[in-house]
Amino acid sequence: MKIARVSETDLIVRIQKRFGNKKPQCGIEIGDDAAAVQNESDKLLLLATDILVEGNHFIRGQISFEDLGYKAMAVNLSDIAAMGGTPAYVLISLGLPPDLKLAEFDQLYDGIQEAALKYGVKVVGGDITSSKFGMVINVSITGYADKGKVISQDGAKPGDLIAVTGKLGGSLAGLLTLMNPNLELDPDIRAKALDKHYRPTPRVKEGVLLAATGKIHAMKDISDGLAKEINTIANTSGVKAMVDAAKIPVSPFAEEIARLLNKDPLEMAIQGGEEYELLFTFASKDYNLLNELANRHKISMHLIGQIEEGDGVLIEASDKIEPLHFKGYQHF
Amino acid sequence: MKIARVSETDLIVRIQKRFGNKKPQCGIEIGDDAAAVQNESDKLLLLATDILVEGNHFIRGQISFEDLGYKAMAVNLSDIAAMGGTPAYVLISLGLPPDLKLAEFDQLYDGIQEAALKYGVKVVGGDITSSKFGMVINVSITGYADKGKVISQDGAKPGDLIAVTGKLGGSLAGLLTLMNPNLELDPDIRAKALDKHYRPTPRVKEGVLLAATGKIHAMKDISDGLAKEINTIANTSGVKAMVDAAKIPVSPFAEEIARLLNKDPLEMAIQGGEEYELLFTFASKDYNLLNELANRHKISMHLIGQIEEGDGVLIEASDKIEPLHFKGYQHF
Repeated sequence: MKIARVSETDLIVRIQKRFGNKKPQCGIEIGDDAAAVQNESDKLLLLATDILVEGNHFIRGQISFEDLGYKAMAVNLSDIAAMGGTPAYVLISLGLPPDLKLAEFDQLYDGIQEAALKYGVKVVGGDITSSKFGMVINVSITGYADKGKVISQDGAKPGDLIAVTGKLGGSLAGLLTLMNPNLELDPDIRAKALDKHYRPTPRVKEGVLLAATGKIHAMKDISDGLAKEINTIANTSGVKAMVDAAKIPVSPFAEEIARLLNKDPLEMAIQGGEEYELLFTFASKDYNLLNELANRHKISMHLIGQIEEGDGVLIEASDKIEPLHFKGYQHF
Repeated sequence: MKIARVSETDLIVRIQKRFGNKKPQCGIEIGDDAAAVQNESDKLLLLATDILVEGNHFIRGQISFEDLGYKAMAVNLSDIAAMGGTPAYVLISLGLPPDLKLAEFDQLYDGIQEAALKYGVKVVGGDITSSKFGMVINVSITGYADKGKVISQDGAKPGDLIAVTGKLGGSLAGLLTLMNPNLELDPDIRAKALDKHYRPTPRVKEGVLLAATGKIHAMKDISDGLAKEINTIANTSGVKAMVDAAKIPVSPFAEEIARLLNKDPLEMAIQGGEEYELLFTFASKDYNLLNELANRHKISMHLIGQIEEGDGVLIEASDKIEPLHFKGYQHF
């Protein structure tokens, strides 16, 4: 059945049933003018939003609706993780083409619900409308952080070490397998690379653990690529970042795709977006403490450089030092 | 200059400058992964969102960008008003066609800022992306309500009176002047009707005052038309609503446009959407208290019917009683 034959009210009832349409003990969820939820006193309220537009962020028919729903959630969860916060409530706005099938609508919500359950957040409301010119998904998320423990992007200090939570370039590798469907690639590697691209892992647990130490000076999630994010940290903090090329952890999927497409895997790791690993800095004296934390909680922490006085970002390879510029995706 | 020639970062800096790019004393605003704001303890957190899609909610070239920005804010403010809450923080997501002019982007934010200042809310973040297939604006809003004072849609009780905060049909009158540009209409009336359509007044003050009495049983804003909203209140509350046609306050703009277009002004008032007046019910014994409140604060309160045991919505005109069905706009 086409979505054009279903009323907005019926779609809302469908969502209510999925997420439980019992009225919460205190507060109001899906279906009223606004949601009213229990609030956490004595914490900072975190707010973030991400819009995914057809033809720009995704191509219908290429990504499954489950993956699209999951990804829309993951990129928002990652924003809260990047502040060291705990995600809590989600609003979903949808602009739906009239030819969308009701089954596809349900699959989209399967992915949304899967991510919501996995990361312990509640979908409490949203808005649904038709959209003649393509599908749009906007997720808004709120979360909480302890006062004094929220981690902004602009707190990096000279003497800090720079670290990331995982290997980079895997999401771009997935995107490149999509753009090169005839690539002779092990199906298992193709599937895993695509998974990196379609189902990124928001580092929520890692963000909370790092924030709890009180030792992290600056943090961002890598949504637009390492090069752009480290430049943002350096610029907003008023410091210089020195990145050691040899220490950047490169995803094995990036290695493999780079080999087949004759690309530079390191460049893929540096410029590739939609990784959603955390990039953060802390005083070098706290390295042991953070290394122990990482070992205890199986956080994959890789040191990739340090912060110095000055400005800009330099990358040091075996034979040269040069500015690290953002060459990745520009929205406009 | 076309927006395609401006980077997302430059647009964000532009917005930061507008709303003040000084870092707040505590917390983080525009430009980081998420905003981190002072939270209000001991209150319920309200969350709402509305998406406006080109070709569906607006036509570029017909509405000014200032009005579009103002309206996107107003419809969200109205959602918080409908819960009896005080709006606080706003996130703006934009999907922008590459041919949008930078001046138009600024005009859009002029309207957003005007509404933000007027209603005392802070724009603390958002997301900007390009959109090949048309412009999209999603506003997400949070607000606060006292525990036990938040007003849901499903609390109407037999014996309640039904009231609205203003005259109805004016927004539809404005829409009809757009659809009938050759109508021989007093320019002043045309301008005022258009203003009702483009710059609806969210009844924030009224919602807060009504909620503070603790006497309101159910409330909604009239976004989809009186007929739909009163049906939602009746259905979700499990009661019957009896509406007295003679008591429905009809906007003078609806009267005038109806006369020129040979339409029924009452039908315009009943079915017309995007009015953003508040529709609410309360026990008849509290009428004097609420009437005094309305007089004291110059709230235009009109009684239009009462709640009874049963189900459905009936409308009583001079000669007949019949079911009041929603015939207005359907998104799909």
